[in-house]
Amino acid sequence: AAPYMLIAGPCQMESLDHARMLAEKIAAAAEAANRPWVFKASYDKANRSSLKGKRGLGMEKGLHVLSEIKREFGCPVLTDVHEPGHCAPAGEVCDILQIPAFLCRQTDLLLAAGETGRAINIKKGQFLAPWDMVHAADKVASTGNDRIMLCERGTSFGYNALVSDFRALPIMAQTGYPVVFDATHSVQQPGGQGGSTGGQREFVETLARAAVAVGTAALFIETHEDPDNAPSDGPNMLPIQDLPAVLKRLAQIDDLTKGL
Amino acid sequence: AAPYMLIAGPCQMESLDHARMLAEKIAAAAEAANRPWVFKASYDKANRSSLKGKRGLGMEKGLHVLSEIKREFGCPVLTDVHEPGHCAPAGEVCDILQIPAFLCRQTDLLLAAGETGRAINIKKGQFLAPWDMVHAADKVASTGNDRIMLCERGTSFGYNALVSDFRALPIMAQTGYPVVFDATHSVQQPGGQGGSTGGQREFVETLARAAVAVGTAALFIETHEDPDNAPSDGPNMLPIQDLPAVLKRLAQIDDLTKGL
Amino acid sequence: AAPYMLIAGPCQMESLDHARMLAEKIAAAAEAANRPWVFKASYDKANRSSLKGKRGLGMEKGLHVLSEIKREFGCPVLTDVHEPGHCAPAGEVCDILQIPAFLCRQTDLLLAAGETGRAINIKKGQFLAPWDMVHAADKVASTGNDRIMLCERGTSFGYNALVSDFRALPIMAQTGYPVVFDATHSVQQPGGQGGSTGGQREFVETLARAAVAVGTAALFIETHEDPDNAPSDGPNMLPIQDLPAVLKRLAQIDDLTKGL
Amino acid sequence: AAPYMLIAGPCQMESLDHARMLAEKIAAAAEAANRPWVFKASYDKANRSSLKGKRGLGMEKGLHVLSEIKREFGCPVLTDVHEPGHCAPAGEVCDILQIPAFLCRQTDLLLAAGETGRAINIKKGQFLAPWDMVHAADKVASTGNDRIMLCERGTSFGYNALVSDFRALPIMAQTGYPVVFDATHSVQQPGGQGGSTGGQREFVETLARAAVAVGTAALFIETHEDPDNAPSDGPNMLPIQDLPAVLKRLAQIDDLTKGL
Repeated sequence: AAPYMLIAGPCQMESLDHARMLAEKIAAAAEAANRPWVFKASYDKANRSSLKGKRGLGMEKGLHVLSEIKREFGCPVLTDVHEPGHCAPAGEVCDILQIPAFLCRQTDLLLAAGETGRAINIKKGQFLAPWDMVHAADKVASTGNDRIMLCERGTSFGYNALVSDFRALPIMAQTGYPVVFDATHSVQQPGGQGGSTGGQREFVETLARAAVAVGTAALFIETHEDPDNAPSDGPNMLPIQDLPAVLKRLAQIDDLTKGL
Repeated sequence: AAPYMLIAGPCQMESLDHARMLAEKIAAAAEAANRPWVFKASYDKANRSSLKGKRGLGMEKGLHVLSEIKREFGCPVLTDVHEPGHCAPAGEVCDILQIPAFLCRQTDLLLAAGETGRAINIKKGQFLAPWDMVHAADKVASTGNDRIMLCERGTSFGYNALVSDFRALPIMAQTGYPVVFDATHSVQQPGGQGGSTGGQREFVETLARAAVAVGTAALFIETHEDPDNAPSDGPNMLPIQDLPAVLKRLAQIDDLTKGL
Repeated sequence: AAPYMLIAGPCQMESLDHARMLAEKIAAAAEAANRPWVFKASYDKANRSSLKGKRGLGMEKGLHVLSEIKREFGCPVLTDVHEPGHCAPAGEVCDILQIPAFLCRQTDLLLAAGETGRAINIKKGQFLAPWDMVHAADKVASTGNDRIMLCERGTSFGYNALVSDFRALPIMAQTGYPVVFDATHSVQQPGGQGGSTGGQREFVETLARAAVAVGTAALFIETHEDPDNAPSDGPNMLPIQDLPAVLKRLAQIDDLTKGL
Repeated sequence: AAPYMLIAGPCQMESLDHARMLAEKIAAAAEAANRPWVFKASYDKANRSSLKGKRGLGMEKGLHVLSEIKREFGCPVLTDVHEPGHCAPAGEVCDILQIPAFLCRQTDLLLAAGETGRAINIKKGQFLAPWDMVHAADKVASTGNDRIMLCERGTSFGYNALVSDFRALPIMAQTGYPVVFDATHSVQQPGGQGGSTGGQREFVETLARAAVAVGTAALFIETHEDPDNAPSDGPNMLPIQDLPAVLKRLAQIDDLTKGL
């Protein structure tokens, strides 16, 4: 099996300069860990806990930023899509379109995403069993597009809490599609801060280690130079300064376990 | 407090004749139980478990059926909406627009629904705590529309299972908005039949009794003349033949508990 | 079906005078609501969250208090047992022996309890499905004692939380044994106060109403004249002052629903 | 940190010959993987799902078998205790006494175990949060015995299911006590086979890898030469033939991650 692919970037896109600054650091960290990488950013946070949360740059500006990053760094780029009508424009720029977890059963969105021919990363709904993700994949595959990834990002566990079930990785891998572990959203505490979502940044590496030891095709890690002041998902983003060391440790585990 | 309002109809709209046949029986049962009623039907099942599931009549035909039922029976009608762009046309016909549980955090959908000025029934996501529904309501209310209902329909409980927490009714009622109990989807077993969703029809009345005893402004019950052969949600729909007796028992509990 | 039987008393026995004071008030409230009642008290809290929690009077003094209450009030009495060796002495005094939820699979305890010939109230473990309680009952029944009650008291729901599943009542009733709803422990928040267990007293009546509407043979309610200063389970005990009104409301629902 | 200690043996002790046969194979596998090992066996399965399940050799014979294994192999031995009165005799033979998960809050059992001076392995209840295990440890420590281990073995996740939360390992390690991961009971499906407990043997290594990558002081693995015909926990025991290869892979991950 190939080394894990890193999918990294800020939760919410802030500006081209900000994206460029993070991409430089992610590129250096990924290169030092000898892992391929994809730049990830969201131009629209469409399901913030509360209306007061910032939503982002919007599609037009956002796709421009992503195309610039792609051009400058030569890296693939990923963004998430929330409506069928957004898939075609996002697919013109992005190498990977991501289906948000809440939307993983919305047939029209899955079909529209699939029809772009781009790779599609489907996040497993917090309400879904891993063995049921095959039905989401089938919807995309029905468009003739089998470039599908299935992503574990935590499952509802009582109120305001998620739990990561690592059996989900081999179970979803039985579909034959590569499996992604999202180490950022797996440590979310939904609604844990009243009008916004809390998180447990201190467990990002813990869960990522588990995922790599079990076997994962890709790791999804959101990162920021100042998570505590980031516009969204700050409590669960990894400080960019920590990324190089974390990636190297994870790469060592990955190299070992993929060879076992 | 007023008697509970019944929201009833088939899960999936099949035809005008079929809707009319059910509406007649629902009207008779609601009248006999002395409860107001709303006709409910979905013209598009946008998040079927699998692609093979039938999706329904589509928006144009569906809204025509609903407007006919409304005209013939003089009853309010409800349907669910899945994309912001569908809210305005659905709002021209429907008295109540319903936000599906998976979509209860999609800001654009909540805003577009709110802007129709129609009453909005927001289903609580299976992944959401009842105290977090206030943020969904706030999104709708930000449009100046405070005709909001909050609906309990079960919470994720391990894989392929839901549980109904009856504390959710008084907790959501603290918002000041009326609370609805959906006795049909609360007995769903998501993914419980492989490519489709299972259900426990035998507990519809059990859970509805609990809701009425605790106090609910409305009951949501899907019903069909032949649930085992219905195009969707058959395992958890109540046979229409049982509706009159169930409604009467529930009305007696409602009359008692609202007077306590 | 017969009216619900009330099982009530303090969580932890404090003294004969205290037990007598509560028993008088419980007797009056039960009589006013026209329900039979059982006095309940624990002489040993054997599984406190922390070692600092008070454990109680001990078996000898405790059984003396219970026998006095029984003699003075002519009521049946219930206590919980934690080791096989305690069943015989407790069974000499008590009409009902209760198996704590954590211990509902301890075969020796169930057998020793069954062998007393007394009625046995088995609490469903927080970790157990309602359909699995038949195996606990079978252990007791194997002693030739079929005077068994099965008691719902909440199920683990993430960390530090319980949820009450009202489907459990009809499911456990399929065994043919009477089902009890414990409205006190169902509102516990295990570990919710660090070294002790929290609770949501405000939902005792909410959940008890649901249980009575669904159908329950007995209600278990712990009560105290000053719950906030009680030695255990204060956060979820009902103030004794509230008991008469609560019981009357519940009796009205019970009378109605048992006649439906 | 030291290499993980292996705790292995059959779920249920069958005979001295059987124990010896397994101990030989475990010794060889542990030695080949360069890990210290402890022989584990239960002489009394005190909480079988159903009364029909076999309970084992009993204390007297069981302790004899354990003392023979200890003498012949020079290894430490572990057994589980279910009543306070069993701790002293079990403590005369065993190096480690284990508190079953269901009993992790039974104060008298924890105290009696602590008083033996032996190391105490406390399994985390399926109903308990990892941060609440400190209270169980404190009960043992109050006896002056701080040779305590805290063991993750899965948490209730809906009905008939467990989930392993790997955040629990670092959280419990904050107590300063070594943490054990029980890879056998973490793949149990409680009640999953009607009157007995099911399991997912295929995930033993998956979860053990995750535990070792996250960091664990010990691994608990039940094993048998013919799990499908073992008297208990067959569905989740690892075939002894697979143990050498599994241990070696886990040892390599352990060597790497303990050095990171």
